[in-house]
Amino acid sequence: MGQFRFLTAGESHGKGLTMIIEGLPAGLPLSEADLAPDLARRQGGYGRGGRMKIEKDHAEIMGGVRHGLTLGSPVALWIENRDWVNWTEKMAIEPVDIEIERVTRLRPGHADLPGAIKYGFDDVRNVLERASARETAARVAVGAVAKRLLAEFGIVFHSHTLSIADVRVQVPSTIDWDAVENDPVRCADAATGEAMVAAINAAKPQGDTVGGEIEVRVSGVPLGLGSHVHWDRKLDCLLYTSDAADE
Amino acid sequence: MGQFRFLTAGESHGKGLTMIIEGLPAGLPLSEADLAPDLARRQGGYGRGGRMKIEKDHAEIMGGVRHGLTLGSPVALWIENRDWVNWTEKMAIEPVDIEIERVTRLRPGHADLPGAIKYGFDDVRNVLERASARETAARVAVGAVAKRLLAEFGIVFHSHTLSIADVRVQVPSTIDWDAVENDPVRCADAATGEAMVAAINAAKPQGDTVGGEIEVRVSGVPLGLGSHVHWDRKLDCLLYTSDAADE
Amino acid sequence: MGQFRFLTAGESHGKGLTMIIEGLPAGLPLSEADLAPDLARRQGGYGRGGRMKIEKDHAEIMGGVRHGLTLGSPVALWIENRDWVNWTEKMAIEPVDIEIERVTRLRPGHADLPGAIKYGFDDVRNVLERASARETAARVAVGAVAKRLLAEFGIVFHSHTLSIADVRVQVPSTIDWDAVENDPVRCADAATGEAMVAAINAAKPQGDTVGGEIEVRVSGVPLGLGSHVHWDRKLDCLLYTSDAADE
Amino acid sequence: MGQFRFLTAGESHGKGLTMIIEGLPAGLPLSEADLAPDLARRQGGYGRGGRMKIEKDHAEIMGGVRHGLTLGSPVALWIENRDWVNWTEKMAIEPVDIEIERVTRLRPGHADLPGAIKYGFDDVRNVLERASARETAARVAVGAVAKRLLAEFGIVFHSHTLSIADVRVQVPSTIDWDAVENDPVRCADAATGEAMVAAINAAKPQGDTVGGEIEVRVSGVPLGLGSHVHWDRKLDCLLYTSDAADE
Repeated sequence: MGQFRFLTAGESHGKGLTMIIEGLPAGLPLSEADLAPDLARRQGGYGRGGRMKIEKDHAEIMGGVRHGLTLGSPVALWIENRDWVNWTEKMAIEPVDIEIERVTRLRPGHADLPGAIKYGFDDVRNVLERASARETAARVAVGAVAKRLLAEFGIVFHSHTLSIADVRVQVPSTIDWDAVENDPVRCADAATGEAMVAAINAAKPQGDTVGGEIEVRVSGVPLGLGSHVHWDRKLDCLLYTSDAADE
Repeated sequence: MGQFRFLTAGESHGKGLTMIIEGLPAGLPLSEADLAPDLARRQGGYGRGGRMKIEKDHAEIMGGVRHGLTLGSPVALWIENRDWVNWTEKMAIEPVDIEIERVTRLRPGHADLPGAIKYGFDDVRNVLERASARETAARVAVGAVAKRLLAEFGIVFHSHTLSIADVRVQVPSTIDWDAVENDPVRCADAATGEAMVAAINAAKPQGDTVGGEIEVRVSGVPLGLGSHVHWDRKLDCLLYTSDAADE
Repeated sequence: MGQFRFLTAGESHGKGLTMIIEGLPAGLPLSEADLAPDLARRQGGYGRGGRMKIEKDHAEIMGGVRHGLTLGSPVALWIENRDWVNWTEKMAIEPVDIEIERVTRLRPGHADLPGAIKYGFDDVRNVLERASARETAARVAVGAVAKRLLAEFGIVFHSHTLSIADVRVQVPSTIDWDAVENDPVRCADAATGEAMVAAINAAKPQGDTVGGEIEVRVSGVPLGLGSHVHWDRKLDCLLYTSDAADE
Repeated sequence: MGQFRFLTAGESHGKGLTMIIEGLPAGLPLSEADLAPDLARRQGGYGRGGRMKIEKDHAEIMGGVRHGLTLGSPVALWIENRDWVNWTEKMAIEPVDIEIERVTRLRPGHADLPGAIKYGFDDVRNVLERASARETAARVAVGAVAKRLLAEFGIVFHSHTLSIADVRVQVPSTIDWDAVENDPVRCADAATGEAMVAAINAAKPQGDTVGGEIEVRVSGVPLGLGSHVHWDRKLDCLLYTSDAADE
């Protein structure tokens, strides 16, 4: 297998999201059903915006798979934006005759200001369409392909929420992963999860949001990933590059 | 601008071709009409197979462009395979119940043999679907985007045929590029072009094809591309890398 | 300028450390004196091992600079290991006739075990020679070159210690950077620094070491580094990649 | 093994040439004696300049090898420039007090003009020191390491001269590689080799040089290098990238 590399494209209110993954081996079983659970999981969680009710993400495999097995060829994925029908003018590929209202209110803590300055935009929509949680759907789909590959080696992923706002869980020594998946904030302790929900509820009336921390646990990983021999092959570094970008 | 990089995906008889280009600047005028001439040009030329009559390639912009200008975001392109309707079972993404006839006759001079050995296939279709002239449509579309960008700097591309089989043109000191475009084999000399056509015709009855050489002329290129300072930044090397790839 | 990239080589008790940096612009003032302060800084700090007394690191410029200015060519650096004279047999490049005692005691929290398993070594010295704090001298020298370049744009670096063992500083609103540099553990608060020293002293009799956290503050950075448009161009990710590598 | 990558540094009349190779496996037998034959071979050939008499290149291994075996660590190589003693002022790293005569006569067919324009030099020495045949010594040494690795897989390299000026050899069906190595221009046919020497002699009085073509034959290569699946993994492309960079 070559290097696993991928590009993603697509705006939040555009036609949809496009992904290409290059470097998969041939003969890996892969179907759209393998991608569905992670896409659905991304759409859950307490306090998500109204958009989640519109979009039921489905990643369609557009190439790279034949009769249920990868071909070794690049795998192309497509996630349609169901909301696109309401944005065909505001987000048209071609110029439009009508005047489009510009977005000029910058979201704090987002890429809006540096993006507008870097690229010289007077409409922040040109930034926010790509600096958007929607783009994570693309990476969740790519991540699901990666997980499908790693599953062949017995490598398994779990994650849970460590903290939301100032509520922090005392991580139990054994985590019930089924319970985590059913918890509205994916907390490993039900009572702490309720406190996290309360913290979200408390922030809402102020028009505010709250941050948090998650932990990803990967088991079944073989010894010897990465290498001590050169700075850019060390595992911490490589992991952060990929994982940070995948959340 | 970052580095110009791109991935392509899609099988010759699959749903279509997917392309993502990352590294374009924001604010570049780009429309599907910019891509059409090169795609049409790829489909011409004397002696093309019957497939050319089926496909009239149209590259649809799926992301990265808004109101006629690039967003700085990755640009996604999609070229539908019109022939797909005839291949939905043979090239299905999901497993099919019927038995699919395998391709076991290897094309000489193609990737069929090494591809089948490398990836362990018993159906050479799994190779030929990607080792296919159709894949060049994807790269022609990407190349058209690159040419659109370079046009902003006055960089212009022309190409013509130097030889087909053993017929070689005496390149005129001044080339009439319009005439080249109208010549069935894009030869800069009409009489030599006719001899090239005759060479193709002579090979056909034997079920054979003939090779050739082309020349690409790029004008308006600024001084100082590439660099002498390190082996992998030298221009010959970089140029060939791109050209060999048909970019 | 191209991409800033570098490779480092050299074992902890070998002849010395070699570094090549590719991608610097031409005309940048650069001398060995620019690299000395950061190399000396690396060798300070309370509780360092005895090796620090042997080595007084000096990075010699072996190429890429002429008459005090970079040539645009790759810059080569060399740091001699003064301790090499004592290791010419144990670390000889060529085979030696005498038997060399193998290292079989694994350091916890280092790459010793995975490195030995990954590369199939029965002498852990083959790992620890490269998984060594000495290798950071190479990256400090490279970092000093990068800082010299960034200084042209008014970008300035400072760093201080946030915590050692369980002693954590209350970061003052204004930091006296000269005082930090003179503090034995580079703590921004003298009394806390003394407590950190005490924590190190307390761990020593058990043959233990203690960890800590540092903060790097970079000022003068222009808006628009990185980009929101693609996952691997986001600044957090890029920053962490570099920082993790101690660059 | 990771990717085989390398950087080279060093000016033609500077202290010497530095090379770092990253991505070698551990346990490969490697000694300076493995590098000597290719370095000596580079220095031969009819019509070389006087410099060849001064330099007897020896590549010293500075890191990455222990007791005759690679460590998996980056391999650092050093080739001293014996001519350096005559250039310590003209090519000094630090500024010098005396005035240094600038080179202002541009070599045609070299990087002198674009290099000077690109980097803003008024002394072409700053270009020619790196755009120099001497730099190929660095790549020959790196190539010798690569050949040592590939030899483990039975992969063998041979090369010979196809043409010099307008003299072209009729390549014999069987080539006597020992005879090629002993021919002054490495021609596979002795009489043609003499004609090539005559062509060089004829150009010399005009102060001119002549070009040529070489052929590299690699045998023992396994099926399945490169891949048909993506444009930048195709073998022609990859091969040329490396080979072009070695001229």
